[in-house]
Amino acid sequence: MTVNPPRLESLEGQLELLRTYREGLLNDTLPFWFPRCVDTLHGGFLHLLDRDGAIIDDDKSVWAQGRMAWMLMTLYNVHEHRSEWQRWAEQGLRFIEKHCFDRDGRMFFQVARDGTPIRKRRYAYSESFAAIAFAAHYKATADARSAERACQLFEQFVRWNFTPGLMHPKFTDARPFIGLAPRMITLVTAQELRANLGEDPTFHSWIDRCIGEIERLFVKPDLGVVMESVSPEGAIVDHADGRLLNPGHAIEGAWFILWEGKYRNDSQLIRLGCNILDWMWNRGWDQEFGGLYYFRDVFDRPVQEYWHDMKFWWPHNEAIIATLLAYLLTGNSRYALWHDQVHRWSYEHFADPEFGEWFGYLHRDGTPSNHMKGSLWKSFFHFPRMQWICWQLLQESLSGLSQQDLKAME
Amino acid sequence: MTVNPPRLESLEGQLELLRTYREGLLNDTLPFWFPRCVDTLHGGFLHLLDRDGAIIDDDKSVWAQGRMAWMLMTLYNVHEHRSEWQRWAEQGLRFIEKHCFDRDGRMFFQVARDGTPIRKRRYAYSESFAAIAFAAHYKATADARSAERACQLFEQFVRWNFTPGLMHPKFTDARPFIGLAPRMITLVTAQELRANLGEDPTFHSWIDRCIGEIERLFVKPDLGVVMESVSPEGAIVDHADGRLLNPGHAIEGAWFILWEGKYRNDSQLIRLGCNILDWMWNRGWDQEFGGLYYFRDVFDRPVQEYWHDMKFWWPHNEAIIATLLAYLLTGNSRYALWHDQVHRWSYEHFADPEFGEWFGYLHRDGTPSNHMKGSLWKSFFHFPRMQWICWQLLQESLSGLSQQDLKAME
Repeated sequence: MTVNPPRLESLEGQLELLRTYREGLLNDTLPFWFPRCVDTLHGGFLHLLDRDGAIIDDDKSVWAQGRMAWMLMTLYNVHEHRSEWQRWAEQGLRFIEKHCFDRDGRMFFQVARDGTPIRKRRYAYSESFAAIAFAAHYKATADARSAERACQLFEQFVRWNFTPGLMHPKFTDARPFIGLAPRMITLVTAQELRANLGEDPTFHSWIDRCIGEIERLFVKPDLGVVMESVSPEGAIVDHADGRLLNPGHAIEGAWFILWEGKYRNDSQLIRLGCNILDWMWNRGWDQEFGGLYYFRDVFDRPVQEYWHDMKFWWPHNEAIIATLLAYLLTGNSRYALWHDQVHRWSYEHFADPEFGEWFGYLHRDGTPSNHMKGSLWKSFFHFPRMQWICWQLLQESLSGLSQQDLKAME
Repeated sequence: MTVNPPRLESLEGQLELLRTYREGLLNDTLPFWFPRCVDTLHGGFLHLLDRDGAIIDDDKSVWAQGRMAWMLMTLYNVHEHRSEWQRWAEQGLRFIEKHCFDRDGRMFFQVARDGTPIRKRRYAYSESFAAIAFAAHYKATADARSAERACQLFEQFVRWNFTPGLMHPKFTDARPFIGLAPRMITLVTAQELRANLGEDPTFHSWIDRCIGEIERLFVKPDLGVVMESVSPEGAIVDHADGRLLNPGHAIEGAWFILWEGKYRNDSQLIRLGCNILDWMWNRGWDQEFGGLYYFRDVFDRPVQEYWHDMKFWWPHNEAIIATLLAYLLTGNSRYALWHDQVHRWSYEHFADPEFGEWFGYLHRDGTPSNHMKGSLWKSFFHFPRMQWICWQLLQESLSGLSQQDLKAME
């Protein structure tokens, strides 16, 4: 696919990528979303946006409220104390507190512009995204109420997901499933809480438990695969739902584990993360049209989900992070090649040269299926998170260089 | 699109179409499905089939069990008393009775091969499809238990759908919706029960009520559209879910209404059915690639559902029936043209020249997204129903001709 040597294998290339991620975040993604998405009438974020940023619909995803507040506070904490970032995030957190909780303490999934509840779902990811937003707010402000809220929401999230019988299951008891998703989200949420609230044995033990369960129950080295759901004992359930793979999702899990391997300097975790990336890249990359398939079947049977071969933006964001992290941790050229491959395909197909930001939903052949920039699932989150993380990782990688070296390469 | 004059406008053309539908049903669709899909081990129908008819998965959709038993008994009643059709249908009905009911009397949505319940849903379409299967069985056998079962399931279906508060809603009370689907399915189920159990004021009054509500609440002549869901007062709910149109589904509703207009010889109903067909054809037909879009937005905003621009087999089946019926009832050339247009596009893109039957799921450009012949939604139902109905309608249309005339045209 790539003619030139992979950019990650030269300092100039790394610097070029660093600039792409940093400038993209600061000069394209941020100004696409802000300030237009801040709801000055009711608070919170309006995020159902058309190609040019026009509001298609004024409903609000509760996931998006937490995710966007988190991303803003993270940029505030890590990059620069810009007061508007804090102000926008705080009005989002106030909207969450005021409107996004049901009387039973669980959070809604979708609310109207004025906060009227519209939909509540059986799962509880709203809680995890609100938790990381409050944790990042604590880091910036040392407001103890935000730390407390973050911990309480994290506890609520793990209780809901790990207490048997609490969440209404999709299937009958005859075919019980456990999912990769709750373990991945618990892992990354605990990592985020640790980063912003500080070390705590609770976070450490949830991280260990989730990585342990992923490795023991979901990872199948003999098949070279990570399952999306398995029986509670880790067996493959040989029916359509049990056979379903989500390569981009597993690759996201790979970089959460690589991140932990980096944090702990643990070569076993790095090996596990790289294995997952290797397997799911091979399962997910479309050899004909490029890009990552959304779903695959573990035994290569036809997949019933209608959008199985579409190319969604977020798996590409996760693969860009995972390949970069794997390269920086191992120095293996394969990851530099893959990083170039997924980076180039993504920027060629998802980027909107006219209005900026990325399209979210492409057909298998890479043509856009719609031109929406924001949906119930796509907001100011996966794409800027990728830009921010890749920028940070490359900055760290290049930190040995002097300012003069860097200047010389510009 | 069509160079030649529409086939429906000549007797030769009508005969050619009649043969396509009849021979297709008897020599292609039926032998593709039977006897391979009859589960000789546990009873019922195995319908999750690959391109060549191989079983992909042995789970069973409860919808499919009822629909397939209904289609077999209908062919038995209307075409020919083939004993294997009755035998296959009856073993399907026994499977339904034995395995597809929960203890509360409601039906499941999906069961394992041996009948173990796997999934139950909040809606109750399983009941409507079982009802028509039992009614068709009564017609063939005069078995009073089947007539009773059909009536009881119909009552259960309408009670579940029309008693406020009984079915768990998808959204909160803040945004109540009523749907076109329960009204359409009640209408066609009552029509089927009337055809097989005989005239009954209950059926008549449900048919009147449903057509009345569709016209009063869902049809918007000023916008030239039929909504898929509205507020209980019939207002358009100006949010993504409320704006969603399903042209093929509304076109299916159009032919249910045309069917009633034909049955009652009621020109107002025929006008209503034609209006719905006209509007939704214009909304749904893809001018660039041909075929019917799956979803559209009433105000032409971007649609969030990932498969909005895919071409599914069943809307094309419904459009082939609706255009034929509209032509035969009105003689309007437009419908003959549209019939040719949707017929040709469908047979060019859905038909599998290698293994027979139709693919179910195409990309917008008409290339197959998968090669499955049977899914949780696609079974021995929409396609053979279209072939059977179009064959019957054309036979009726040509019934004035003598056997000699017909021979001369062969």
